[in-house]
Amino acid sequence: MFIRNAWYVAAWADEIEAGPLARRICGEPVVLYRDATDKAAALIDMCCHRGAPLHMGRVVEEGLECGYHGLIFDTDGVCVRIPGQDRIPERARVRSFPLVEQDGFLWIWMGDPALADPATIVSCPWHNDTINWPHKHTMYPIKAAAMLMVDNLMDLTHLGYVHGSTIGGNPMTHVAAKMETVRTNLGLKFTRWMLNSVPPPTYLRAVPFEGRIDRAQVFEFIAPGSILQLSAADEAGTYANGLPENSKLQFRLFHGLTPETDTSCHYFWSTANGFRADDPVTTEQLFSEIAAAFLEDKSVVEGQQARLTELGENGLVDITTDAARLHMRRTVDRLMDEDSRGLAA
Amino acid sequence: MFIRNAWYVAAWADEIEAGPLARRICGEPVVLYRDATDKAAALIDMCCHRGAPLHMGRVVEEGLECGYHGLIFDTDGVCVRIPGQDRIPERARVRSFPLVEQDGFLWIWMGDPALADPATIVSCPWHNDTINWPHKHTMYPIKAAAMLMVDNLMDLTHLGYVHGSTIGGNPMTHVAAKMETVRTNLGLKFTRWMLNSVPPPTYLRAVPFEGRIDRAQVFEFIAPGSILQLSAADEAGTYANGLPENSKLQFRLFHGLTPETDTSCHYFWSTANGFRADDPVTTEQLFSEIAAAFLEDKSVVEGQQARLTELGENGLVDITTDAARLHMRRTVDRLMDEDSRGLAA
Amino acid sequence: MFIRNAWYVAAWADEIEAGPLARRICGEPVVLYRDATDKAAALIDMCCHRGAPLHMGRVVEEGLECGYHGLIFDTDGVCVRIPGQDRIPERARVRSFPLVEQDGFLWIWMGDPALADPATIVSCPWHNDTINWPHKHTMYPIKAAAMLMVDNLMDLTHLGYVHGSTIGGNPMTHVAAKMETVRTNLGLKFTRWMLNSVPPPTYLRAVPFEGRIDRAQVFEFIAPGSILQLSAADEAGTYANGLPENSKLQFRLFHGLTPETDTSCHYFWSTANGFRADDPVTTEQLFSEIAAAFLEDKSVVEGQQARLTELGENGLVDITTDAARLHMRRTVDRLMDEDSRGLAA
Repeated sequence: MFIRNAWYVAAWADEIEAGPLARRICGEPVVLYRDATDKAAALIDMCCHRGAPLHMGRVVEEGLECGYHGLIFDTDGVCVRIPGQDRIPERARVRSFPLVEQDGFLWIWMGDPALADPATIVSCPWHNDTINWPHKHTMYPIKAAAMLMVDNLMDLTHLGYVHGSTIGGNPMTHVAAKMETVRTNLGLKFTRWMLNSVPPPTYLRAVPFEGRIDRAQVFEFIAPGSILQLSAADEAGTYANGLPENSKLQFRLFHGLTPETDTSCHYFWSTANGFRADDPVTTEQLFSEIAAAFLEDKSVVEGQQARLTELGENGLVDITTDAARLHMRRTVDRLMDEDSRGLAA
Repeated sequence: MFIRNAWYVAAWADEIEAGPLARRICGEPVVLYRDATDKAAALIDMCCHRGAPLHMGRVVEEGLECGYHGLIFDTDGVCVRIPGQDRIPERARVRSFPLVEQDGFLWIWMGDPALADPATIVSCPWHNDTINWPHKHTMYPIKAAAMLMVDNLMDLTHLGYVHGSTIGGNPMTHVAAKMETVRTNLGLKFTRWMLNSVPPPTYLRAVPFEGRIDRAQVFEFIAPGSILQLSAADEAGTYANGLPENSKLQFRLFHGLTPETDTSCHYFWSTANGFRADDPVTTEQLFSEIAAAFLEDKSVVEGQQARLTELGENGLVDITTDAARLHMRRTVDRLMDEDSRGLAA
Repeated sequence: MFIRNAWYVAAWADEIEAGPLARRICGEPVVLYRDATDKAAALIDMCCHRGAPLHMGRVVEEGLECGYHGLIFDTDGVCVRIPGQDRIPERARVRSFPLVEQDGFLWIWMGDPALADPATIVSCPWHNDTINWPHKHTMYPIKAAAMLMVDNLMDLTHLGYVHGSTIGGNPMTHVAAKMETVRTNLGLKFTRWMLNSVPPPTYLRAVPFEGRIDRAQVFEFIAPGSILQLSAADEAGTYANGLPENSKLQFRLFHGLTPETDTSCHYFWSTANGFRADDPVTTEQLFSEIAAAFLEDKSVVEGQQARLTELGENGLVDITTDAARLHMRRTVDRLMDEDSRGLAA
């Protein structure tokens, strides 16, 4: 069960530079490629002649050529060439999916193409600001439902337990964080304030704070699978009147969770360095610290999925710190219901 | 669904020199072995005592000894010894399958033994002519239905796309080849004429042709799974009146496709060098060029099987170059129907 | 289908020294751990909050802390701490299983806790006698039902076939062994006498016997999964009046078969050196010889399971040497029936 009438990250735009890419999205095998004019496209990854996967073919002048018997499809999935015959039957075509390239992503729409409005795509402008917010990105394949990864990001009390030895720091700092939540039509936005707290080791490595610090984490969830994160820290007292425009330590993360199957997903994420933007080593280090931490999430969430697959969710007990997560889930349930009635998210 | 009343290649005869061999054929676990008198036999690969696989046992004077508790079975599957008791009950036996050793193959019959007529086994005489047609052979395990591999061999337009960088040459040469087809009771025989064409790189490496060449490929499909192939080439003009008895370049291939399961098969194939028979290097080189090319087929056909398993064949579009393949399929469908009514192929 | 109201070996006691251990027992995911007071406990391996596997957590002062959001459970499975809230709801608990540490084992009870009587646990006293019976132990994961491994140990005629090149010796010695069997409420005890027989190579390596020997093997099966074995040998004639208290060569084995799933099990086994107790090399050598032999059992029994899973047991033929095995199976069938009526084994 997926929300289909919604935009999902299908790939990082640079993933298809080298040729066609096969990726399963919302249960369907998709081939992503860039045609001879550099236009990115998404087709069902199966030739309409004998069923060969189109990602095994190659891009030619007229489109994507099947690697088995040479049929060629344009970006709309229409067959434009059949070796050995002149007439191309009307039904020689494969399904295509709306695809939009924006902010370094390829966004795909798996539902009714008539409902696909590019104006509703999540915006991630700092991906284009390589001067002030240099970033790095990758994708982690996760053997767990996309929603379990969104859960993970909606309850940050996990930081002290899952990431105790990496980015977490003291569990109680996270549990005691003051939450400020705003509900939106497609999700929620919350800020976690950890004022006058002891800086975790990774923060100290980034900026030589001398005493306690004020920390803030701003998370915005936009259904079905995007989370925009801003993490900031400065000398204690700085955030007394809210978050200033800039902080001594500040970085942004993008999290994109795209369902692969009911129990697996693609985790697209990026880290953007907004505090020492002219230092590539800092950009690199931020990325590699997060990369290690997200492997910890991957491990525990995959373990969780295995148990839920076997034993189900009956009897599980919600706790106080689940508040943001539960609001997110209610939003997604509502959208799922709307989706099943043919409405776009 | 398999045609069961038919002969299939179970193994190359030399595969059982070292001892019993386990192989799944038409969905059933079979053990192939050679008894103390060198007679090859095929039994169900499961002891009738406690179910241990017989291929884990060893050949002894009286037959095949189970590796668990020592029961011994003769080539008819009759138990001839039970350690610890004198009387051998009537029902102490395992199923045996008709097996014939011929032309370097072990041919097995998975259907009603009463219908098994060795006279109907496909003949491959050049396998015995080591002077004029020295050959090499092997088996590729393929994760695709046997029929998808037969399809592959019935539509050679794939050569230019699948084998572009190996044995294929120019796609259009293959698409434009003139087809001459003869239908037979158990399949079809077709000749593809590529007169006055540019020799592909592998042909030039084999014979230093100086200009254009006449090429011919003769394929005979004999249901359910054999394809006999003769490939020949000579100076342009040589084939004006048909294929002469010998050509400057000529080699034979045998292709035997034996179902393992509904979605996997054993691909037995050989290459025989008929143009430089006294040169072992040529025999070896012919084999290794084909070996590389058939890995390309394996790859695309396994990809095809994965898609067909998931999405089915509904909506696929036949094209002009499918003619031979479609005739083959109609033959196989007819035989499948006859098989289900208890008739031999 | 398992007998649930019975004690099974869950682990060797030393397996949980390093931290929590995940193990599937009778189809259920269990976490075994030792709390801060060194008390061993077994809980269902799934947190009642969001379903994370508890074995990914760590032991803290109050109990086992979930590695995801920090809930803590005591040895009864009761949640004693929820980060971020003071009130702990009644239903915040996970299932616990009776667990007893004895003779180096952790014994678990997967059925009705009210029926769990530690007095009925199989006793293995020599595991505590490190002076006279120094032992070594391990666990082999087996991809076959526990009962197939018990079968294996109830019909020792397999020794000559499965272990011909290791501990087996001459097959006929084993087939001709005189069996003396005593039936018990929970199984049977049998002694195999091989008087005046040729010593197998491994025996000669252990003790330099000069001529023929008397051998005895005493096996006691206690349902559902324990087998206590004593193997002894001495000069021919020594056993004329039965087994003396000590023999020149004597060693004990414990075999514990615990179901993991219907078609897999954990094989806990130990070897105890009772004939050269002060020589660690002998203790080590005995262990490694048995270790090699049991890999042979693993291999053939896993092969057997694969065939039985596919083709079933219908049509299998019992033979004379199956007598002890069949008695064991009848006992287990009776207990299974009692178990399904809520009675303890």
